[in-house]
Parts: sequence; structure tokens; C-alpha cells
Amino acid sequence: MSPVVSFVAGSRGLWEIVSVKAIAGPSLDAAAAVDVREDGPADAPSDTKWILRGVASYQRYVTREEDRELKALQEPLGRPASTDAVLIPILKSDLWWALPQDERREIFEERSHHIRTGLDALPAVARQLYHGRDLGEPFDFLTWFEFAPDGMTLFDELLHELRATPEWDYVEREVEVHLRRTEVPHD
Amino acid sequence: MSPVVSFVAGSRGLWEIVSVKAIAGPSLDAAAAVDVREDGPADAPSDTKWILRGVASYQRYVTREEDRELKALQEPLGRPASTDAVLIPILKSDLWWALPQDERREIFEERSHHIRTGLDALPAVARQLYHGRDLGEPFDFLTWFEFAPDGMTLFDELLHELRATPEWDYVEREVEVHLRRTEVPHD
Repeated sequence: MSPVVSFVAGSRGLWEIVSVKAIAGPSLDAAAAVDVREDGPADAPSDTKWILRGVASYQRYVTREEDRELKALQEPLGRPASTDAVLIPILKSDLWWALPQDERREIFEERSHHIRTGLDALPAVARQLYHGRDLGEPFDFLTWFEFAPDGMTLFDELLHELRATPEWDYVEREVEVHLRRTEVPHD
Repeated sequence: MSPVVSFVAGSRGLWEIVSVKAIAGPSLDAAAAVDVREDGPADAPSDTKWILRGVASYQRYVTREEDRELKALQEPLGRPASTDAVLIPILKSDLWWALPQDERREIFEERSHHIRTGLDALPAVARQLYHGRDLGEPFDFLTWFEFAPDGMTLFDELLHELRATPEWDYVEREVEVHLRRTEVPHD
């Protein structure tokens, strides 16, 4: 089982918030920084603006062949050059969740090329998906993207392409939070 | 979003526990009854033996055509004649969860006929699946079966068939909790 990851927005955190933009539905409150934590938000500081939670979980749509391509190209989070990050929380409609698995897969990949489009941005744009739906979170998904500053153009193209797809007809709420790393992470 | 459903085992509850049997891995503690609750276990009685939680969530494998067949045949939980119930918590292996979606589907249905076998027991054996994996629960799935006493033979055949499938090679822990309703539910 994967741990629950909490994105805690407040006055302090490794990732400084550059901007918060509502793409669909209500936005998230402004805050100075986001702290990404695996130890749960039990002792979140009193000036916390919001906490979003998700689980890395297992793949819902990827096939063996796509998995091979992804693993051959993708790089992990935490690369020293990845000083830019974007957190995109998404809520999909009840209509989406009522669809059977084969129709969701068809919209997701055969018609919207979600995996293919993500592959085109690898390895420059690293990403990790977190699932929040079964946790009763306000967002079904949190996607965390990381890249070097010169990857921003490629990242923007990725977003632009995905948002023009049939899959995005099912997106009810979406927020785009841009972040910048304030120091080199120490591990 | 579906609510989290809690199965609270202790001294009181609508469903009296008839037996608890470990099929694979450690069993669950004996208790007198199970209370099925949607309001969370926050105020669980002090003599609670165990609490298992899950979310009804969305379909992970069912196709449109299978969904049609299921909906045409299945009946809801809570039928007055359904005085027998069985709760089967299951944990699958890391190997299962590391498989891509297409291979899990193939094992689940094309090779193990999980949906087809369940269809054969409809409408006599009603069932509801709850997902616990993303919640960090000890079991990935809780399946609740309900039927009239004369449905027991059909139910036993269903279990027997499923446990002989390739899908069950990935089951690490499984417990079978038989229950009997102690009174007519009032709604």
C-alpha cells in the first residue's frame, strides 16, 4: 500500500507558490508555500490554508505495452534541476465515474491520448499521480509535475493538448498551482 | 463520492456473527455481531473487536455490456428475505497491484470469469463490493453478499468456483464471516 501524501499550503514549505489559477470551478486560497508530506497532516501548522491528500495507488488504465514505454522514458521526482513544479488538482463529473471501465479507457486513451501526450513530454516533465476519490477528498486526482525552468514551454503544450481532449469534457473542477523550489532538498 | 462504510464487529449489531473462518492468512477475532455503518467509526463502542472500512467507489473492470447484464439481473441489498449475509475481506499481493490494467482485467475476467460467475448467482445472491486499498486498510476489498437461507448452496458454489481461478493465486489473505440478520431492518 502507498502512503497518503498531503500537500499542505501555508506560510512555510519547500515549494514556494508562484501562482494559483482556477481553470474550472472554484479556486484554492492563496498561500505562500506548499509542504509535501508523507506523515499525515495531523500536526499541520495553525496558519494552514488548505490540505489536499492523495495516494499514489495502482494504474487504472495503462497497458503492459504503455507501461514499458513509460518506464523506459520517465525519470523520478526530485531531480536537482527540477526547480519548477505544478500541482493540478482535478475533480471529474459523476457522469465520468458512472461510465464502465472500457468506456473510460476509450475516452482516456483511444480518443484523448492522455498517456501518449504525457509520453511526448518525457523525460523533461516528470509526473506523479495521486488518487483522492476513495479518500472522500474534494479532488479525484492530484497530479504533481516537476521540470527544469526550460521545460515550461513543453509543459504548457502538454496542458494545452490535454485540455482540448474529449476527456476534459468530464472535468468539473481544475486548479493550476505553480511552484518553485526554495532550496535543494536534503536527503 | 460514495461514503466510507464501516463494518464494526463487537457485542451488538443488526447482523449476528455465525462463524469466522480464515481462508488464507490470519483470521479476524471472534465477535458477537457486526454493525454496518455509514457514519464513521468515531464513536465505536469500547468493546469493538475490529473495524473494517471500504468505499463502494466506481467499477474497475466491468465493460458496458457486462454492466447491462448485471443491472438487468441484480437486486439491491436489504431484501426482506435476505436474512443470511457473508462478509469476505480480501487482500491481494503486491504482484497483483504491480500488473498493468489490461493484464489484471485479463486474469480477472477472460481467465477467471469473475463477473460471469457472479452473474450466474444473480439475482439470488446480491452483493456489494467496497474498496479499502486507497484508504490504507488491512484488506483491499470487502465483499458483502446477501441471500435467503435457500441461497446458501448457490453461494457456496460461487465461492468454490472463484477460489479455483487464476485470480485467486494473487489472494494473500481472505476471511469468510457468516452472518444472520437478527431483526427486520427499519428504514
